[in-house]
Amino acid sequence: MAGPVQSIERAAAILRLLAAGPRRLGLGEVAASLGLAKGTAHGILRTLQHVDFVEQDAATGKYQLGAALLHLGTSYLDVNELRSRSINWADALAARSGEAVRLGTPLEGKVLVVHHVFRPDDTLQTLDVGALLPLHASSLGKVLLAYGTTPLDAALESGLDAYTRHTLVAPEQLTQALAEVREVGWAAEVQEMSMGEAGLSAPIRGHGGLVVGAIGLSGPVERICDSQGRPRPSLITLIREAARAISRDLGAARW
Amino acid sequence: MAGPVQSIERAAAILRLLAAGPRRLGLGEVAASLGLAKGTAHGILRTLQHVDFVEQDAATGKYQLGAALLHLGTSYLDVNELRSRSINWADALAARSGEAVRLGTPLEGKVLVVHHVFRPDDTLQTLDVGALLPLHASSLGKVLLAYGTTPLDAALESGLDAYTRHTLVAPEQLTQALAEVREVGWAAEVQEMSMGEAGLSAPIRGHGGLVVGAIGLSGPVERICDSQGRPRPSLITLIREAARAISRDLGAARW
Repeated sequence: MAGPVQSIERAAAILRLLAAGPRRLGLGEVAASLGLAKGTAHGILRTLQHVDFVEQDAATGKYQLGAALLHLGTSYLDVNELRSRSINWADALAARSGEAVRLGTPLEGKVLVVHHVFRPDDTLQTLDVGALLPLHASSLGKVLLAYGTTPLDAALESGLDAYTRHTLVAPEQLTQALAEVREVGWAAEVQEMSMGEAGLSAPIRGHGGLVVGAIGLSGPVERICDSQGRPRPSLITLIREAARAISRDLGAARW
Repeated sequence: MAGPVQSIERAAAILRLLAAGPRRLGLGEVAASLGLAKGTAHGILRTLQHVDFVEQDAATGKYQLGAALLHLGTSYLDVNELRSRSINWADALAARSGEAVRLGTPLEGKVLVVHHVFRPDDTLQTLDVGALLPLHASSLGKVLLAYGTTPLDAALESGLDAYTRHTLVAPEQLTQALAEVREVGWAAEVQEMSMGEAGLSAPIRGHGGLVVGAIGLSGPVERICDSQGRPRPSLITLIREAARAISRDLGAARW
């Protein structure tokens, strides 16, 4: 069996590099970041430009992501079964809870947000679809780690960044928290990614029972938690019921 | 100077193929559609799977687009200057006109929607960002064709599909309509893509004065057009002013 195609792997690495920051990058920066000869990087960039995966700024000659990726990305959403099966349940969950709802799957050691329903009020909110959240500092990510949907070892190896003073940065803290998630069947994150914010998530199981994603709600800590700082039981019930309903739609056995 | 990297071009063609339909595709279908040997197609698909650009359905072994594309696609939006410079003007245009607003750039012989502001009412609307609209049957596309942002010859060669009985399907009809767009400085589409719907668009010019995109509003034909079926002058003024404001922000000279 043939091995992976090196030039495609390199092209993917260049696209990930361009997606990692808000800046356009020059040929030299791309080549140096990936340890490629300039000529090699140039050939790949020109091909990526030819297929509209990369655009070159006319004034500076620097490179940025291209328009074809937007169409591919939204086409991915159209075929994502987890998302399509969840849309109605996510809308209902947002309406019942009064909070924002997100759906996550693992990608590149993070949580990829594949669906986002705004909190049902008139405040200005930004669509998070396509964003990557940290595994250890989000309730969606804790679910994916707790049920082995994404490997814990890799997360520990890449290090646990501190976002607030409440972020779980010690491996044993995180391991203990994940054991509790498996014990109770849901995950909480209280001011661990952003002060004043909290979230609750539950696992979504696919055909065969494996956890394939997570659904979560999030909002101001005083609305997600009670006066003792504990997640409100009424919200936990809502999120677990939504996760169970989606799992059944995906073909998981009742439990 | 080295030529394009063949395996990357083939990988891009596979991704476009997977994006073209709602179905997952088997190895044989992918290989046959692109005229590749099965072994070649398999090597590319495995590599695309390895970098999360493609996912393989566990039950059927068929392929579909992968999650990494969603993150790349939304990252493209973050660096798209046309979109970032237009967001506030598009919001204001939707508020003033009471209609939905879209921003388009050319991609693969179509119009790629890079921004979409919902009509400011409480009706259920679907986000069109990432969707591809036909050039000849949308007001956004007519602007891009009229000002040479995307080539007319290619559009004529690939054929003008009829979406309704009002769609301009004869090349000479379309050529005449585009000359009128250049004459008046805006484009209309009246029930040419969908019966009961109409749209108006104006060109956005970038640094140096070239047309780089289009901004348009659309809605029920009786709101976009007057009782004689002509676009309402008040809406034409609003769309042209928005396009001019964005062009100035992009560095185009005043005109």
